[in-house]
Amino acid sequence: MGYSFMGAAHSQAWRTAPRFFDLPLAPQLTALVGRNDSAARAAAAKLGWDSVHTDWRELIERDDIDVVDICSPGNTHAEIAIAALEAGKHVLCEKPLANTVAEAERMAEAASLAAARGVYSMCGFTYRRTPALALAKRMVDDGRLGTIRHVRAQYLQDWLSDENAPMTWRLDKSKSGSGSLGDIGAHSIDAAQWITGRTISGVSAMLETFVKERPIGGEMVGLGGHGAVGDDVPRGKVTVDDAAIFSARFGGPAHDGGPHDNGAASDGGPIGVFEATRFALGRKNAMRVELNGTLGSVAFDFEDMNVLQYYGAADGPDAGFRRIMVTEPSHPYVGNWWPTGHGLGYEHGFTHQVVDFVTAIAEGRQPEPSFADALQVQKVLEAVEASAAADSRWQSV
Amino acid sequence: MGYSFMGAAHSQAWRTAPRFFDLPLAPQLTALVGRNDSAARAAAAKLGWDSVHTDWRELIERDDIDVVDICSPGNTHAEIAIAALEAGKHVLCEKPLANTVAEAERMAEAASLAAARGVYSMCGFTYRRTPALALAKRMVDDGRLGTIRHVRAQYLQDWLSDENAPMTWRLDKSKSGSGSLGDIGAHSIDAAQWITGRTISGVSAMLETFVKERPIGGEMVGLGGHGAVGDDVPRGKVTVDDAAIFSARFGGPAHDGGPHDNGAASDGGPIGVFEATRFALGRKNAMRVELNGTLGSVAFDFEDMNVLQYYGAADGPDAGFRRIMVTEPSHPYVGNWWPTGHGLGYEHGFTHQVVDFVTAIAEGRQPEPSFADALQVQKVLEAVEASAAADSRWQSV
Amino acid sequence: MGYSFMGAAHSQAWRTAPRFFDLPLAPQLTALVGRNDSAARAAAAKLGWDSVHTDWRELIERDDIDVVDICSPGNTHAEIAIAALEAGKHVLCEKPLANTVAEAERMAEAASLAAARGVYSMCGFTYRRTPALALAKRMVDDGRLGTIRHVRAQYLQDWLSDENAPMTWRLDKSKSGSGSLGDIGAHSIDAAQWITGRTISGVSAMLETFVKERPIGGEMVGLGGHGAVGDDVPRGKVTVDDAAIFSARFGGPAHDGGPHDNGAASDGGPIGVFEATRFALGRKNAMRVELNGTLGSVAFDFEDMNVLQYYGAADGPDAGFRRIMVTEPSHPYVGNWWPTGHGLGYEHGFTHQVVDFVTAIAEGRQPEPSFADALQVQKVLEAVEASAAADSRWQSV
Amino acid sequence: MGYSFMGAAHSQAWRTAPRFFDLPLAPQLTALVGRNDSAARAAAAKLGWDSVHTDWRELIERDDIDVVDICSPGNTHAEIAIAALEAGKHVLCEKPLANTVAEAERMAEAASLAAARGVYSMCGFTYRRTPALALAKRMVDDGRLGTIRHVRAQYLQDWLSDENAPMTWRLDKSKSGSGSLGDIGAHSIDAAQWITGRTISGVSAMLETFVKERPIGGEMVGLGGHGAVGDDVPRGKVTVDDAAIFSARFGGPAHDGGPHDNGAASDGGPIGVFEATRFALGRKNAMRVELNGTLGSVAFDFEDMNVLQYYGAADGPDAGFRRIMVTEPSHPYVGNWWPTGHGLGYEHGFTHQVVDFVTAIAEGRQPEPSFADALQVQKVLEAVEASAAADSRWQSV
Repeated sequence: MGYSFMGAAHSQAWRTAPRFFDLPLAPQLTALVGRNDSAARAAAAKLGWDSVHTDWRELIERDDIDVVDICSPGNTHAEIAIAALEAGKHVLCEKPLANTVAEAERMAEAASLAAARGVYSMCGFTYRRTPALALAKRMVDDGRLGTIRHVRAQYLQDWLSDENAPMTWRLDKSKSGSGSLGDIGAHSIDAAQWITGRTISGVSAMLETFVKERPIGGEMVGLGGHGAVGDDVPRGKVTVDDAAIFSARFGGPAHDGGPHDNGAASDGGPIGVFEATRFALGRKNAMRVELNGTLGSVAFDFEDMNVLQYYGAADGPDAGFRRIMVTEPSHPYVGNWWPTGHGLGYEHGFTHQVVDFVTAIAEGRQPEPSFADALQVQKVLEAVEASAAADSRWQSV
Repeated sequence: MGYSFMGAAHSQAWRTAPRFFDLPLAPQLTALVGRNDSAARAAAAKLGWDSVHTDWRELIERDDIDVVDICSPGNTHAEIAIAALEAGKHVLCEKPLANTVAEAERMAEAASLAAARGVYSMCGFTYRRTPALALAKRMVDDGRLGTIRHVRAQYLQDWLSDENAPMTWRLDKSKSGSGSLGDIGAHSIDAAQWITGRTISGVSAMLETFVKERPIGGEMVGLGGHGAVGDDVPRGKVTVDDAAIFSARFGGPAHDGGPHDNGAASDGGPIGVFEATRFALGRKNAMRVELNGTLGSVAFDFEDMNVLQYYGAADGPDAGFRRIMVTEPSHPYVGNWWPTGHGLGYEHGFTHQVVDFVTAIAEGRQPEPSFADALQVQKVLEAVEASAAADSRWQSV
Repeated sequence: MGYSFMGAAHSQAWRTAPRFFDLPLAPQLTALVGRNDSAARAAAAKLGWDSVHTDWRELIERDDIDVVDICSPGNTHAEIAIAALEAGKHVLCEKPLANTVAEAERMAEAASLAAARGVYSMCGFTYRRTPALALAKRMVDDGRLGTIRHVRAQYLQDWLSDENAPMTWRLDKSKSGSGSLGDIGAHSIDAAQWITGRTISGVSAMLETFVKERPIGGEMVGLGGHGAVGDDVPRGKVTVDDAAIFSARFGGPAHDGGPHDNGAASDGGPIGVFEATRFALGRKNAMRVELNGTLGSVAFDFEDMNVLQYYGAADGPDAGFRRIMVTEPSHPYVGNWWPTGHGLGYEHGFTHQVVDFVTAIAEGRQPEPSFADALQVQKVLEAVEASAAADSRWQSV
Repeated sequence: MGYSFMGAAHSQAWRTAPRFFDLPLAPQLTALVGRNDSAARAAAAKLGWDSVHTDWRELIERDDIDVVDICSPGNTHAEIAIAALEAGKHVLCEKPLANTVAEAERMAEAASLAAARGVYSMCGFTYRRTPALALAKRMVDDGRLGTIRHVRAQYLQDWLSDENAPMTWRLDKSKSGSGSLGDIGAHSIDAAQWITGRTISGVSAMLETFVKERPIGGEMVGLGGHGAVGDDVPRGKVTVDDAAIFSARFGGPAHDGGPHDNGAASDGGPIGVFEATRFALGRKNAMRVELNGTLGSVAFDFEDMNVLQYYGAADGPDAGFRRIMVTEPSHPYVGNWWPTGHGLGYEHGFTHQVVDFVTAIAEGRQPEPSFADALQVQKVLEAVEASAAADSRWQSV
């Protein structure tokens, strides 16, 4: 469902996964849903789907559909996902899970009930499937970083830097839920929680909207572009954040996620600093994560996505950040692709997502990240907004 | 034809090209050829081909085949390609075009005759389709580098660095033609000639085989691996070069490619230095090209394949190599993929190759690189071997 | 005064400045002060000072002393500096200016009174004299970045990462004033305010002490090292922060520095995020500053100190961060040193500091950063501590 | 002797070495020699020398001179050095040792005779004293790279890229001996031979002069600059190489340095490829060395001089080039300077050279590189020129 940027990425993943991986089930691209019939037909032809619907309810009524893949805007996720799960369809839902915690909670509850019946759901935090980040996670799990002290996560883009880039649905809070925070910051939050194996327990935040109004219409280029300029050009009000900055504390591995006072002594979890922006001129898709532990550190930047930087204190005085080309057969996902040194691209994460999702379904176990995991991310997003609205005061998650 | 590493890459390209590009013709994956019937059937199923043959001649006899894509070892190229062209099939042939200049000449002649009948052929130097290298080419063509003085091309890998990596057909000159020189050095030669728009007119070379014998059998990992070790393990003789180094001169843009004496005054073409090796421990697929001109320089490394380094003297005292993320809509091939900053991977070059090949066929014009272009590369390879065998003496191409 | 790390750096600067720059006054290394007479004598001999005193008051009484250079711990700065200024000596004082705002205010007042009499003072934020950062400042002043939106400042070290690194005066709040915040974070604050030409108007902060107690004694290696381990080893209490994270808003160029509410609409100044830590394993002296403006961005990392990364939107679709080797004759300070491409080291900033300080004195004008500038940094440090103690609530500076 | 670029670097080294290192002897900057008396006096005052002479013979006659440091052009080295050695002065001579092998042989002979009397000499290949390269050498000596297979040495500058940069003595073969080859290529040769512990046994080479004539006069900027332009501007003939490329073989560790046939089977020494140019636009002082061995690799670039890249196969599948900040107390020379992460600059190599030279003299042993070592470099330079003049034919050293 949905056939633009995300639709193209998901379609390519469904087509490609069985070509490079041995899937226990054979995906069929049965039907694509789009509101506009002719546009949907064109998209289906282009992307390789067998049929189209203009109403997602029709899809859910079909008996020959086992999986629903939701790529529509965030405000539609809850209704579709819950209906699909109740109809016994496995659901892959794009992030952010929902636009509010309330919606996300309903979705997580539906997911939990469905899982008890063997119907599974997953949220599309695809960066987990980037081999370099998956390797970082493996290193942390293997204890190679020791106890994590610092999390440093930036997600820097610049496609809104031009103050005349056009107004779009992504800048309208009623549709997108939030701006850079939910769109890209959510990826950082999920990655940080997943890799550390800990949940964020509290935050202090600041949000900023640099450009308050933007021209309606104008030429889109990529996600941004350059709108019409002039006094008579109608302008729409930007109702989301352009940038978000927050500090965070993480609970322990078995942490209950409950309130945590910033002033109190640390319980030993890491501290984190997060920044998400679409105004970092020159940074195109710098989704960066760095972790510093007692034994080692890792650093990742999506602009060099086939590389993981790793520093091991055990390397001694000749230690240095190792530029690991994450293209070895032993690295996550990589063995199914090309020889060493032949890197992957952005959409490979979506292919890996399909592999993991389908495999979990076939094996009758919960795929990750679950809707519950995604709900936790949603709670962090809400706490960030609450703190920003309350003079940056510490806000428990 | 052929279904291993290259077969998988080509298949993915044929499947994917029409999903992201508007092709004037719709590719059908009609038939795959492999000598072993059951293996070929398995590959066809995996890679999405409709039927299989165990003899390539059957393929050529089929009326419903318009294009033959040759991915088999180099010593088979000439026979297949010539037969296919004569049968009126367009041919895409993997590099190196052939194992000898004589074969390549026959192929180029067949290609020329076929082209006169509207039947086209192309050689698979896919690095030309890497957006960053295509951007480098565009910059040179646009005059942004001025007159090129230096070409610096390295192709560094390390998968044979382990002296117990197993003996394979790639190390047997009768099958592969040459070692690092033809396998990877050929890419550097093609890229250098293509980007500069000039042909190499002479070379002085040195070849080296570090490991003269290798165990037969043993576990392959990627292209290399680790063979069985022990006194009783049979070992095969490595008959190709492990590393090749050569210096070169380039003729002028309208150069006739004829003999050129190194001792004579330069005619103004650039000088080049080339190195190809599979023993550069730590370098995984460092296909690097740097050009220095009178106005600017570019530098590329496939290990960071979505980036082109560019230096423009016009940037003044605050000039510096620009790390261009070659992911803008205006960059070659990129607009059909993802938003800015979302990089591509190794196999995208193959998809672009399909796009260019199919488009040229549909438009009735010669796709590039032609067999004649590939023959020129073959001549350089031969000159390199001749120089290395003659005390490194300068050898005209 | 003071002859350890900072003493060595300052002495080298005083000796070297006249050898490479045309100074209007000729520095004489007249006297060094140290509490322990024999140690001070040894240091003076080593570092090239003509005489020694064990009491700084003796120095100030000497008629042949024009300049006092204070490198002692922060808790001694105010008394010495004020006395020196009152005695008509020009003063160069290491950062942080003082351990409290109250002290800093008295110093700034004394400095102001002295300046009226032609006696000048300066605070040693030497990073201002790193050519790459000075170039960043010049670019901002020249409007090449447009309006600054983002300030991203990290100062990452790892010399305390070993939990058994010994207890030292730097970890004792009564001597050092604060930990990573005042020691290294102060550099980030000064750099950010100086380069943007704006003062920080408010902050929200979090401090953390990862290791609460450390062994007394043990072998120092560099600033850190490894202390004695065992149950019977006496341990001292760490009373400073190990890491500091804060977000900030900057006032306008003509900003009065007064209170600024975070919840209110932005006044157009940039937002900033700061992090200072000595626990970022693998980061040795990563003093980093990145600014994103409407027209351009710059990024700096002291671990590659001769380089400034610059991105100019005017470079168009082929823009990319330029890796500027800041070694051109036209670059700040550089023309007096070596040919292009021959980089400078850490202590050169101190030499440049001497040049700027002496030149300002000779020309009868206030050198920068003044004690007033340093007081402003001190106020930010205090606001950070206040916010961290108040649940990260926004704190005006 | 000599007081320009090299004179300033050497003077700073003599002044600074005793401030940071415990030297067994105390250097005195007794006298500076320059042909022009007033210029020499000004230089001596600026650089800190006690007296001046206009004739180097006067210096050698002085009893209070123990060491002669030769920084004059290459064509003057032999006469001065031999006279100084015969007069019992220790000699530090800038590279290249001489302009011809014949001169270098006489110098090496004089050095040998002098050494027998306890009078020592050394040649100024200062890159040996860059901590990162010294660490590379240590790693090789410790066996961490295993057997070296590849040497890849580039020395890339661009200060002559402008075809109107003025004619200078460096471009006049009668004064400078050669161009990029002897000026910068000599550094690469020395570094390669020193680090590998092997001598180059043969070469195949190509030289090129891109710009055959240059304007006489014009404004120098750094080493290059921009000369006067116009038809009436007198132009001088460039008689040296602008760029040099050569491949090489290295003899075994105990190799006699005798003739070695390129066509013959390798004796197990590494193969090398070298390039030196002043026309690599954008490369400012890229003195680069990479070694690939059976167990590890190292890579260095002077444009990031405080870093050594190291790859160790023993790091396993998570190996990657480690970016070692060569600023640890255990690294060569570094412990006497600043804390970890605080890098050194270009001239520190000269300071280390003084330390090593003075220490060797005091301990009565031969400092390295000896004149014999420098003679070997000279022989390689001569072989390169001979090969280039003979159609690139292999030339034994």
